[in-house]
Amino acid sequence: MRIGVLTGGGDCPGLNAVIRAVVRKGVQDHDHDFIGFKDGWRGPLQGAVTELGIPAVRGILPRGGTILGSSRTNPLKEPDGVRRIKESLAKHEVDALIAIGGEDTLGVARRLHDDHGIRCVGVPKTIDNDLSATDYTFGFDTAVNIATEAIDRLHTTAESHMRVLVVEVMGRHAGWIALHSGLAGGANVILVPEQRFDVDEVCGWVTSRFGASYAPIVVVAEGAMPQDGDLVLKNASHRDSFGHVRLSGVGEWLAEEIERRTGKEARTTVLGHVQRGGTPSAFDRWLATRFGLHALAAVDGGHFGTMVALRGTDIVRVPLAEATARLKTVPAALYEEAKVFFG
Amino acid sequence: MRIGVLTGGGDCPGLNAVIRAVVRKGVQDHDHDFIGFKDGWRGPLQGAVTELGIPAVRGILPRGGTILGSSRTNPLKEPDGVRRIKESLAKHEVDALIAIGGEDTLGVARRLHDDHGIRCVGVPKTIDNDLSATDYTFGFDTAVNIATEAIDRLHTTAESHMRVLVVEVMGRHAGWIALHSGLAGGANVILVPEQRFDVDEVCGWVTSRFGASYAPIVVVAEGAMPQDGDLVLKNASHRDSFGHVRLSGVGEWLAEEIERRTGKEARTTVLGHVQRGGTPSAFDRWLATRFGLHALAAVDGGHFGTMVALRGTDIVRVPLAEATARLKTVPAALYEEAKVFFG
Amino acid sequence: MRIGVLTGGGDCPGLNAVIRAVVRKGVQDHDHDFIGFKDGWRGPLQGAVTELGIPAVRGILPRGGTILGSSRTNPLKEPDGVRRIKESLAKHEVDALIAIGGEDTLGVARRLHDDHGIRCVGVPKTIDNDLSATDYTFGFDTAVNIATEAIDRLHTTAESHMRVLVVEVMGRHAGWIALHSGLAGGANVILVPEQRFDVDEVCGWVTSRFGASYAPIVVVAEGAMPQDGDLVLKNASHRDSFGHVRLSGVGEWLAEEIERRTGKEARTTVLGHVQRGGTPSAFDRWLATRFGLHALAAVDGGHFGTMVALRGTDIVRVPLAEATARLKTVPAALYEEAKVFFG
Amino acid sequence: MRIGVLTGGGDCPGLNAVIRAVVRKGVQDHDHDFIGFKDGWRGPLQGAVTELGIPAVRGILPRGGTILGSSRTNPLKEPDGVRRIKESLAKHEVDALIAIGGEDTLGVARRLHDDHGIRCVGVPKTIDNDLSATDYTFGFDTAVNIATEAIDRLHTTAESHMRVLVVEVMGRHAGWIALHSGLAGGANVILVPEQRFDVDEVCGWVTSRFGASYAPIVVVAEGAMPQDGDLVLKNASHRDSFGHVRLSGVGEWLAEEIERRTGKEARTTVLGHVQRGGTPSAFDRWLATRFGLHALAAVDGGHFGTMVALRGTDIVRVPLAEATARLKTVPAALYEEAKVFFG
Repeated sequence: MRIGVLTGGGDCPGLNAVIRAVVRKGVQDHDHDFIGFKDGWRGPLQGAVTELGIPAVRGILPRGGTILGSSRTNPLKEPDGVRRIKESLAKHEVDALIAIGGEDTLGVARRLHDDHGIRCVGVPKTIDNDLSATDYTFGFDTAVNIATEAIDRLHTTAESHMRVLVVEVMGRHAGWIALHSGLAGGANVILVPEQRFDVDEVCGWVTSRFGASYAPIVVVAEGAMPQDGDLVLKNASHRDSFGHVRLSGVGEWLAEEIERRTGKEARTTVLGHVQRGGTPSAFDRWLATRFGLHALAAVDGGHFGTMVALRGTDIVRVPLAEATARLKTVPAALYEEAKVFFG
Repeated sequence: MRIGVLTGGGDCPGLNAVIRAVVRKGVQDHDHDFIGFKDGWRGPLQGAVTELGIPAVRGILPRGGTILGSSRTNPLKEPDGVRRIKESLAKHEVDALIAIGGEDTLGVARRLHDDHGIRCVGVPKTIDNDLSATDYTFGFDTAVNIATEAIDRLHTTAESHMRVLVVEVMGRHAGWIALHSGLAGGANVILVPEQRFDVDEVCGWVTSRFGASYAPIVVVAEGAMPQDGDLVLKNASHRDSFGHVRLSGVGEWLAEEIERRTGKEARTTVLGHVQRGGTPSAFDRWLATRFGLHALAAVDGGHFGTMVALRGTDIVRVPLAEATARLKTVPAALYEEAKVFFG
Repeated sequence: MRIGVLTGGGDCPGLNAVIRAVVRKGVQDHDHDFIGFKDGWRGPLQGAVTELGIPAVRGILPRGGTILGSSRTNPLKEPDGVRRIKESLAKHEVDALIAIGGEDTLGVARRLHDDHGIRCVGVPKTIDNDLSATDYTFGFDTAVNIATEAIDRLHTTAESHMRVLVVEVMGRHAGWIALHSGLAGGANVILVPEQRFDVDEVCGWVTSRFGASYAPIVVVAEGAMPQDGDLVLKNASHRDSFGHVRLSGVGEWLAEEIERRTGKEARTTVLGHVQRGGTPSAFDRWLATRFGLHALAAVDGGHFGTMVALRGTDIVRVPLAEATARLKTVPAALYEEAKVFFG
Repeated sequence: MRIGVLTGGGDCPGLNAVIRAVVRKGVQDHDHDFIGFKDGWRGPLQGAVTELGIPAVRGILPRGGTILGSSRTNPLKEPDGVRRIKESLAKHEVDALIAIGGEDTLGVARRLHDDHGIRCVGVPKTIDNDLSATDYTFGFDTAVNIATEAIDRLHTTAESHMRVLVVEVMGRHAGWIALHSGLAGGANVILVPEQRFDVDEVCGWVTSRFGASYAPIVVVAEGAMPQDGDLVLKNASHRDSFGHVRLSGVGEWLAEEIERRTGKEARTTVLGHVQRGGTPSAFDRWLATRFGLHALAAVDGGHFGTMVALRGTDIVRVPLAEATARLKTVPAALYEEAKVFFG
């Protein structure tokens, strides 16, 4: 069999581990051939390919990023996209496609399979851990470890100067990274997109922490919003050097508000891209490797239109349709559980 | 309510995170009092106690080890053990006990509860991850990360000298650390206690790796045994400086056998205690914290004789009896899955 | 003898290691007493003190920040500052003062000693490594390691998306952190405050890197400036939520310029406070410990008005006056040496 | 010009960084050609070569080990060794040789240059930091960081069980790694090869530490010896599985002695090969890179028979003869300085 592989969406530690596992198992156990499509769906769309055999996957297990490149190209929005993909697959004699990506990438895979009969198997990838069909996605544990280590570091600098440190972490729609790293890092306030926050309540937690002679750490997901948000945030907007209006990030905005309302010095750190780069944690390498092995098994067993997923300690298969149906957000009860550490 | 807390068995990153979560929640949400018993069951047995309030748990979240100390004391094997424990609890007006430990510690808790009516709640702890009632125990992820990082380092030194590196990791009865770190570290052979290994087969994998111009890493759990083991291992025994007969570890023994049979240079690294010390990974801090919160909730809800456990992403309660019934070992199918990377 | 200790200026990994070494040596070898002044010069100015003996310094070696707190208070600018400090020292029967800090803190120590006869010994501290009298200051190696690890991580995410990543590191007046972390991290462009940069030249290096099918990393010190800087930067200013005019950081500005001029996607990461927090590297712990031991020896030998310094592998003493005379910046020749890696 | 490069002796983090810097500067600034000799002096001896250009050195900066391989082959002890090397160099039209290695490798380079007119430049490499002509060698800082991190981890496990932990680190003839990591890790006893130790004195320090309710860490260099050493160590010898007599390591032996003499539980961790593998620290990457640049400059300037060296923050040139004349050991005064932390 000849199998195509592609990686789409934002990069994520563990992508290379998936690719390696797929190829190693396919070649050694089944004598399959592989072809890499470059930069996500741009690859089959434009016929951009690269060799993919045992030599290409050597040594890539511990490396972040993806040797196949990535993009956010959506072939369903391109003129004649589906036909061009079919031609690409035919030209390269590809029997099946393994698509590794998030909601968008897998949504395309689902449509290509369900509506157009292209034989696709999905591997879920989202650093934000917000896919509902799987307990965890790889990359998330790495991001949480990086954010936790940063919070560990910020504690000592906060204490030395008795100032508030606001740490902005990834998470546009789901607060998993903020929740996990905030709990693991001993944050004094954790703010997530799922729950609008009250700046005065945040200031209350911050102040009570100072009362105990400790300096507070506030972890805020980039997508978190204040209760009376839009209006206030608009005031924090500015024109950039091209004349475009930009919003300051919520972290910077919040530090300014805390400083203004409590009189305490506050600083912001925006962790940004370091959360998604570099070598994967052991857990992410293990999960990505197992995802790869089971994705190959799904192709081999003819289970197209499915995606691999983690349930407890097992890798299972779920329909692609189910996988992309609903965003997995932080439940209110779980967020409530964390509040015992606030203040 | 006045709640006693103790930690028993080998130390494990995350113990302090459990203690902190228990106390934070107990004091802030319920106004409970706490008392720490020192060194596992030795504490209530001998009346060795320490204060345990908010000040005592400050800053301990990221610290390895246990502020309460630990021991392997088994009060059921001590003369009058149960009576002395009851007196201790009475004297300190302890209403309930939270016991954090492995099979032995929890086994005592179960007996004290089931047979003697002492109100106990358990928190499972085993760095080897071999308790069957929970998906994971804290400490395991930290150990796997440390072992994986060591394997990463050993790859480059193996390649530079084209020699075999044997890495002996923890795991007397279960090979979880070997399996996970071996997969995550890209090992070329993984040996676990669950499957006796054939030295010649190991040598075959090692040789084939050299054939591909790469130097092999062999990860071996300390409890792994060769097929014709006992006889051979006896030859590797020696008298120590006190005249006692000692077995060389399996790692050292295996390196010697590989060297002898293949003619390739082989070296051993025994990771030892570094695997169980130091700051917990983010996952372990999160798991230990949630275990602590739910153990307190179990006490508060009167669910004595139970233990907290992880199932998927949920914390659940299981009877202590169930928790200690069966060792969780690496299933043959899972080990088989990993073999695609051997050689 | 009774010795006062204070830490001033920005916090820095290694401060606690200095304090510990001073106290351990003073108590064990000389039976001295110690008193901690809180928050830099604010301590003696306002009589804010804390106990400082063996128990206080236990376990602080690996901890970032400073147990004494810090501030930027300058007593020479306070009404009656010198007299109040003298009264504080007299009241607490302090025979000598060890001041740990940067240019400002040590400048005060020098004035207090030279002009007012207060017995001071200095320990140099600047995370930017810009004090001319010493080869290195502690904290710098830690910051460089953190920045390098971040750059390592950013490489993989840059490659996956073929985008430019601009990393803004600390260094307002001296580019040491940028130069060292840029060299160690394999950056493709390094920009320092000592040399105004030409944006078009930067874009040239960036473009040539893409030509070789690799994605570029640009490391820029926060104090680096473009050749035609002021004018352009003014356009990037914005009003914050309080109505104050603020400059965007040079990192963000540069990424926008690169994107505009080359058409390549560019992103910025501002490392910020994580560079100065958390556990010190082994080198910094070693250097800070030796600085502490030798500062105590200087007090003991009556070498007041001096500061400890590193020369090669030796700790020496230099006059405080010399120590604070001149900023140590990156020499042009050294910067030139690094350029072989640009592009 | 056509320049040969080889790496000899034990591997060491930073070797690849040297190779990369040499090639980058040689190709970009001078248009030189390069050829890699494989496995140290075995390469030119047996004519084992590999291509070495910009593509070969891409991405190797952060990787441990050496892409050229290494060995301990000494061509001066091989029949006709010098002639065969000369023929190899002639055959491959090599104008000059850059030899990266320790005492042995550089000693050969010196003889080849001084006695046989072969144009050699040396780059010093020893993870033990025991070359007298340079302040530091690359690899050392990485090893010290790894050992320090291990000691950090072992503290918490020692405290939890109130047991002694003996950590055996590298250093056969010089105690630099033990001294630096012991100081940085807050060890309670540090033992180096330069000073024979008195086991009873060690036991005294260990016991006094327990008196203060803390558990001690003993860092011992692999080459450290007790005062009455040989006799006692002989008793600890054993026959291995091939019938050869082997000495237990000093770490294991010392733990047994401490246990026997003090009655306290003691455990050993032998760090072994993890100290020399894996990614170099930022300092080592910086030092190795600068060594590489200056070695190329030495070749270019015709300064054969010299070696690059670090003096303070400068890279200088010293004659190869001087470089290999004398082992740099820990001075007695420096060891004495550390003793304030013992016990």
